[in-house]
Amino acid sequence: MNDKTLQPVLINGEWRPARNSIGSFRAVNPATGEELADFYPISCFADVEDALQAAQCAVPGLIKTPPETLADFLDLLAERILAHYDDLVDMAHLETALPKEPRLRVTELPRTTNQLHQAAAAAKDRSWCRATIDTKLNIRSKYSPLGGPVAVFGPNNFPFAFNSSAGGDFAAAIAAGNPVIAKAHPSHPGTTRIFAGIARDCLKACGLPLAAVQLIYHLQPEDGLKLVSHPLLGATAFTGSRPAGLQLKKAADKAGKPIYLEMSSLNPIFILPGALKERAKRIANELFNSCTMGAGQFCTKPGLVVLLKDEESKTFLHSVQEYFKQSLPGFLLSKNVLESIISALETMKKAGAEVVTGGKPIDGPGICFANTLLRVSGDTFLKKAKELQQEAFGPASLAVLANDVEQMLEIAISLEGSLTASTYTHTQGGDDPLYARLEPILRAKTGRLLNDKMPTGLAVTPAMVHGGPFPATGHQGFTSVGIPASMLRFAALHCYDNVGQDRLPPELKDKNPTGKMWRLIDGGWAQRDI
Amino acid sequence: MNDKTLQPVLINGEWRPARNSIGSFRAVNPATGEELADFYPISCFADVEDALQAAQCAVPGLIKTPPETLADFLDLLAERILAHYDDLVDMAHLETALPKEPRLRVTELPRTTNQLHQAAAAAKDRSWCRATIDTKLNIRSKYSPLGGPVAVFGPNNFPFAFNSSAGGDFAAAIAAGNPVIAKAHPSHPGTTRIFAGIARDCLKACGLPLAAVQLIYHLQPEDGLKLVSHPLLGATAFTGSRPAGLQLKKAADKAGKPIYLEMSSLNPIFILPGALKERAKRIANELFNSCTMGAGQFCTKPGLVVLLKDEESKTFLHSVQEYFKQSLPGFLLSKNVLESIISALETMKKAGAEVVTGGKPIDGPGICFANTLLRVSGDTFLKKAKELQQEAFGPASLAVLANDVEQMLEIAISLEGSLTASTYTHTQGGDDPLYARLEPILRAKTGRLLNDKMPTGLAVTPAMVHGGPFPATGHQGFTSVGIPASMLRFAALHCYDNVGQDRLPPELKDKNPTGKMWRLIDGGWAQRDI
Repeated sequence: MNDKTLQPVLINGEWRPARNSIGSFRAVNPATGEELADFYPISCFADVEDALQAAQCAVPGLIKTPPETLADFLDLLAERILAHYDDLVDMAHLETALPKEPRLRVTELPRTTNQLHQAAAAAKDRSWCRATIDTKLNIRSKYSPLGGPVAVFGPNNFPFAFNSSAGGDFAAAIAAGNPVIAKAHPSHPGTTRIFAGIARDCLKACGLPLAAVQLIYHLQPEDGLKLVSHPLLGATAFTGSRPAGLQLKKAADKAGKPIYLEMSSLNPIFILPGALKERAKRIANELFNSCTMGAGQFCTKPGLVVLLKDEESKTFLHSVQEYFKQSLPGFLLSKNVLESIISALETMKKAGAEVVTGGKPIDGPGICFANTLLRVSGDTFLKKAKELQQEAFGPASLAVLANDVEQMLEIAISLEGSLTASTYTHTQGGDDPLYARLEPILRAKTGRLLNDKMPTGLAVTPAMVHGGPFPATGHQGFTSVGIPASMLRFAALHCYDNVGQDRLPPELKDKNPTGKMWRLIDGGWAQRDI
Repeated sequence: MNDKTLQPVLINGEWRPARNSIGSFRAVNPATGEELADFYPISCFADVEDALQAAQCAVPGLIKTPPETLADFLDLLAERILAHYDDLVDMAHLETALPKEPRLRVTELPRTTNQLHQAAAAAKDRSWCRATIDTKLNIRSKYSPLGGPVAVFGPNNFPFAFNSSAGGDFAAAIAAGNPVIAKAHPSHPGTTRIFAGIARDCLKACGLPLAAVQLIYHLQPEDGLKLVSHPLLGATAFTGSRPAGLQLKKAADKAGKPIYLEMSSLNPIFILPGALKERAKRIANELFNSCTMGAGQFCTKPGLVVLLKDEESKTFLHSVQEYFKQSLPGFLLSKNVLESIISALETMKKAGAEVVTGGKPIDGPGICFANTLLRVSGDTFLKKAKELQQEAFGPASLAVLANDVEQMLEIAISLEGSLTASTYTHTQGGDDPLYARLEPILRAKTGRLLNDKMPTGLAVTPAMVHGGPFPATGHQGFTSVGIPASMLRFAALHCYDNVGQDRLPPELKDKNPTGKMWRLIDGGWAQRDI
């Protein structure tokens, strides 16, 4: 293995060999278990330092760039992605084994280009920066770029929509005026390379600093810690596992660098007795779809289903079991995912969970795990709440059978923070008294509370919150999905006190820069000039 | 010393003796150096645990409380403070030696009641929660109370306006619907006790949970760490020294608990050559006032003045020196403050700073330090940038004489994050080219950028930002002054997905709850119903 055969990294607009790379890796096709052809470098910190320096030089230019140009870039990127549609779908399919249809082609890639267009629109609209103007005192403030690049660590499970070089965090960081240093997920480096290449060409076409998008494929853990705590860094966005997230958080926190983490989530579903009586079969089908879609590899997959131990729930779980059994599971994204689900289930079984169906890897060349339903009593769950709150990332879910309504509430109280929590309730109000008691408990533990709806398949829309209390994320005041709110992660609050018109940024001058931008002027939202 | 002679703590609405207190302390009158009569307990963790448990019980009630009632409480508190005006001014004067007139009576107490009224108005208005509604998908979100109490650690330097039981953090936390656990500053426990007593009576009068305001006077450092990282805590607001702040941050970060810190700041002033030529005397007078007001004990006191080394700056510094010399310094707040300024100056002198005037404590029964101006060359500053960036909390400031414009810019680049940064520029545009180069450097390093204005005396107004990059604060996306923005620190982003009208909080129902509240409906700010 020598450097010439390694794929180049993208630093400061140039595809160049990694400097003194400390190793290489190849992506694996989960459908065959075989390594793919291309070798990618594990960068040493020299590459990161080059990227940080180049990004730092790009910062002033990006701050001065009119938002319209940022928007042009994001729109153009979305358009050119369409021109590489087949390449992207083919590569992502090879690297992740996610189905081309509908997942990659019809669902995820359109979502990705849609996000880019939404971010472009938000940049152009400018209202995201929440310009606040006190006319009498001439004090004016707004959210502004961070003054340093955003490091984006993309996850394994969305090769497009959360890709570090084209996904939601990327789009939000760029739309807010920051350079991005993308750290590819090692399970789909080829997909990420294609995106970064398109992005680089679009930067050039729009006359933007080429260091606004840079790409590194892989780092040793200690170099990741150095990156997120580096003085030149603006902030980090990380989507991935809890152990890795907590390590990064510790390093970033110590250095006083903002880090936004989306780490893990159980996404509990509480099925109230009235709903179960009313429509058990329909809910069983919804649960099955939500748990097994994408082989259960979503951050919002329901990992826990809480219901009363009675005849209805017995029948219900039997239906779920049948669905789980009869359907072929999809491929897991990597051997790591397989090992991690095996280990999570091991812990849960030791703590008293019983396998209803599945529970084992499926033999074959592909990386696969049977659709798995586990069951545990409410008593045992409460005794072993920590061990049984395992994110088994993959097609697995644990049903908890509560003795009574009081225990159901106790179970809710025992839960740690989640991205989502759902309740299913009787349509005619039969569950209202219980809902009234359960809702405040769940509300405090989650970013998104759903009613009569499964949490997977989240819409990219302004009111969406993909966030929640620690340890689901690092800060419950933010969201990683939903534009423009997601952009606020990558912004600093900047005030101008007694600064004259000619020295103010356009968004804070008396004249509304677009004629339509919303600004908070003397306490009221307005689109007018001053 | 036995428990009966110790002042009681306020837990769950009751003034009761501290449980197994581990010691006691008395406030000191800085004007005489003598201890005051009352003994206050250093609580052990049992008191904190009681307060956390009681606050937890108050959370659901507070969440359900109509914002109008929260507003009534805050307004009533402001009114009743007026009825205790003399008591408060007398006590604060005894404990801090800050002048009764104008500081305590005319400036700080009116600011405090004004903040409470502003917070009341923001609570009632409800627009602060940024309700966001996507009508087509029925996805709705808003900022909501944290679900746990806010621990407020007040600073030594504002016995009223930042008091843990009545100041800005307190008002913002309550207005956002959270209980407060106040940790008094040990330099003014009596003032804090009066505020907490009034607050308790107002809670009762308004029918609010009495555990919404609780007071502890003092804690051992390790118990402070336990408080900010406790599972029942919502968040922490801390204003104080950097070493204490960093310790608390580490503990809170590890536990995933939000903590907002306002720790230290140099507040550099760059006087550009044109401004100095034009109006040196006026600027010298402004600088003197800003550096010595309140004996320089403001977080926004200019600690660093950067100017070119030339004849004008020589004359300018001579004027400043004369002002500093001729004016009597105020009292320092405590012996700790005195020791800390001595130590900071020692470090600066060792690093090459030269005392122009002052530099020593002033003998006498009162705690006092001479108005101090130091000077250093730009060369030395750049060599010892870390040592010379000391917050000398008190009436001291360091002038840095740059060889030329390029070195002035280098000095700006070398600075760490500050709450404020000011430039003074020629009124006819003579400094424009230099301003254009300096502004982007300073902009990235501060929350509030001022032009031709000193940073002390900050207005409580919606566009104000009292924040900035680490290590001035813990997160540059937030502000601790300026309502309603300061309330967002004490809120969680909550989304409701597919939740019916009768189960939504009032702010997210179709009908606008006040008829005037601003909401982001389908991308536009509106006051209408849906």
